[in-house]
Amino acid sequence: MKNIRIGIDLGGTQVKFGIFQGEVLADKWEIPTRREDNGSYILRDITDSIENRIKQKNISKEEILGAGIGVPGPMDEKGIVHSCVNLGWGVFSVEEELGKLLNIPVKAGNDANVAALGELWQGGGKGYRDMVMITLGTGVGGGIILDGKIRAGVHGAGGEIGHMSVVYDETEACNCGKKGCLEQVASATGIVRTAAKLLKNSDKPSTLRDIANFTAKDIFDEAKKGDAVATAAVEKLGEYLGIATAHIACVIDPEIFVIGGGVSKAGEVLIRTIKKYYKEKAFKGCTETVFALATLGNDAGIYGAAKLL
Amino acid sequence: MKNIRIGIDLGGTQVKFGIFQGEVLADKWEIPTRREDNGSYILRDITDSIENRIKQKNISKEEILGAGIGVPGPMDEKGIVHSCVNLGWGVFSVEEELGKLLNIPVKAGNDANVAALGELWQGGGKGYRDMVMITLGTGVGGGIILDGKIRAGVHGAGGEIGHMSVVYDETEACNCGKKGCLEQVASATGIVRTAAKLLKNSDKPSTLRDIANFTAKDIFDEAKKGDAVATAAVEKLGEYLGIATAHIACVIDPEIFVIGGGVSKAGEVLIRTIKKYYKEKAFKGCTETVFALATLGNDAGIYGAAKLL
Repeated sequence: MKNIRIGIDLGGTQVKFGIFQGEVLADKWEIPTRREDNGSYILRDITDSIENRIKQKNISKEEILGAGIGVPGPMDEKGIVHSCVNLGWGVFSVEEELGKLLNIPVKAGNDANVAALGELWQGGGKGYRDMVMITLGTGVGGGIILDGKIRAGVHGAGGEIGHMSVVYDETEACNCGKKGCLEQVASATGIVRTAAKLLKNSDKPSTLRDIANFTAKDIFDEAKKGDAVATAAVEKLGEYLGIATAHIACVIDPEIFVIGGGVSKAGEVLIRTIKKYYKEKAFKGCTETVFALATLGNDAGIYGAAKLL
Repeated sequence: MKNIRIGIDLGGTQVKFGIFQGEVLADKWEIPTRREDNGSYILRDITDSIENRIKQKNISKEEILGAGIGVPGPMDEKGIVHSCVNLGWGVFSVEEELGKLLNIPVKAGNDANVAALGELWQGGGKGYRDMVMITLGTGVGGGIILDGKIRAGVHGAGGEIGHMSVVYDETEACNCGKKGCLEQVASATGIVRTAAKLLKNSDKPSTLRDIANFTAKDIFDEAKKGDAVATAAVEKLGEYLGIATAHIACVIDPEIFVIGGGVSKAGEVLIRTIKKYYKEKAFKGCTETVFALATLGNDAGIYGAAKLL
């Protein structure tokens, strides 16, 4: 084998690995993330796991171009992590440390940005160069790719679109401390919160009233069946995503928005709803910007990590 | 002389020219813009004016590296203008046409983006590489510079931040046809409109009531003296600029925001007011982003045009 690249997606509970030969994902596996002792075993565990796997596969270090890694915290453009609370990490060069352990070239980036790069390379954004990825999960993440490269920003806040303050009348605080972040209405937890509020503040009949602890998926399912409250919650999510994407287009005017994360499993209805509000709010020159669903699912991170090299 | 570059700032009423030797503006002049016959004389006029000037100055074509030109309309990254209503221009390559006439290399860009590049090179953004310029004039313009280069966007809408839909309760339409654009509250005309509305909807005493056809400058002057209505109008402008810049920081997280245009003559009070709201709305990682005033005034365009080469 030749032209081998290893993609690593470091998460708070699991580390995912992929071995890529050219553009092909030839092998993938995962291990648990050991967070004990401020995450001091993590890079050693990653190294051991890769060394074992390539031995099994009869791959020599000479065949490997290098490894890329996505890290769940703010990374600067030199591969230095600036404290990663959920791993217990402080400030250090992930590229240097892991490079020494593995003895191959290593490139590191923020996990959301790296997943965006993966979708650009082999997913929903394939064939484009200027892409904004929006990940609708527990929170709302984002990644900005310009001219095929991650745009991390000066403080690593590039693509933090979940924290655009778009909801002016919000009364509750976001996890970040501010009020009115996009994440508060457009994430999986956000849409559940919206629906719960709508149910509480009206007597409207809704099938959601019969579902204990309904989820984002339940809301989209009931909306598809015509439930008015569920539909209103989906519309609110779409409206604020439409506003946010229109704002983004006024700044960098990308070719495509790619929507991923658990909520994006709702499918084309999500794209249609966002686009309806986007077209209303977008500057006239860019109302026809492409919107697409992400296609790599949980593998986006390993794809993007491999592409970092 | 050597290393000579010519900067051209093509406006709706005037064309400004600058001859740069290295980083120094060695000569500048201007001519009227002839818009007759769909602006078909403009490039010929520009050529004649440059040919005459360099003859007077004993500059030979061999000493000139080339000319850059800022055009008041949407330009793509290949130097093609996509119709420029106020000049009567359709779609054509400004770089190619002017290059043929002048017989030197020509680079062209949108005027707002080019002015931003000028401020980065020798103005308020000197020493930075990632800058957002906001021009507060009759309208609100913008230019995005990343890694020292203009980010024009796929449809030329990059930096069109005057048309971010940030005012949700706006009832009147913007020039662009949408409602609630930043331009409607943060331009010179916008702040006058805000103050007029505040005066109409209250009986509050205000020195503005004694000024017939008050201007943006009058509003800032009266606010400095403590007038409550004028202060409220300045605060509204600052609030929405704070919101918009916080949105921009969540997308590209620049090093610096440079504020220019006629309204920026209000000075440090403008920066302080925007920053107050920016800090409230910005993502925690980037609350300390630098804000500065533009320094090149009307010369930003010729500086930036020369720097296009």
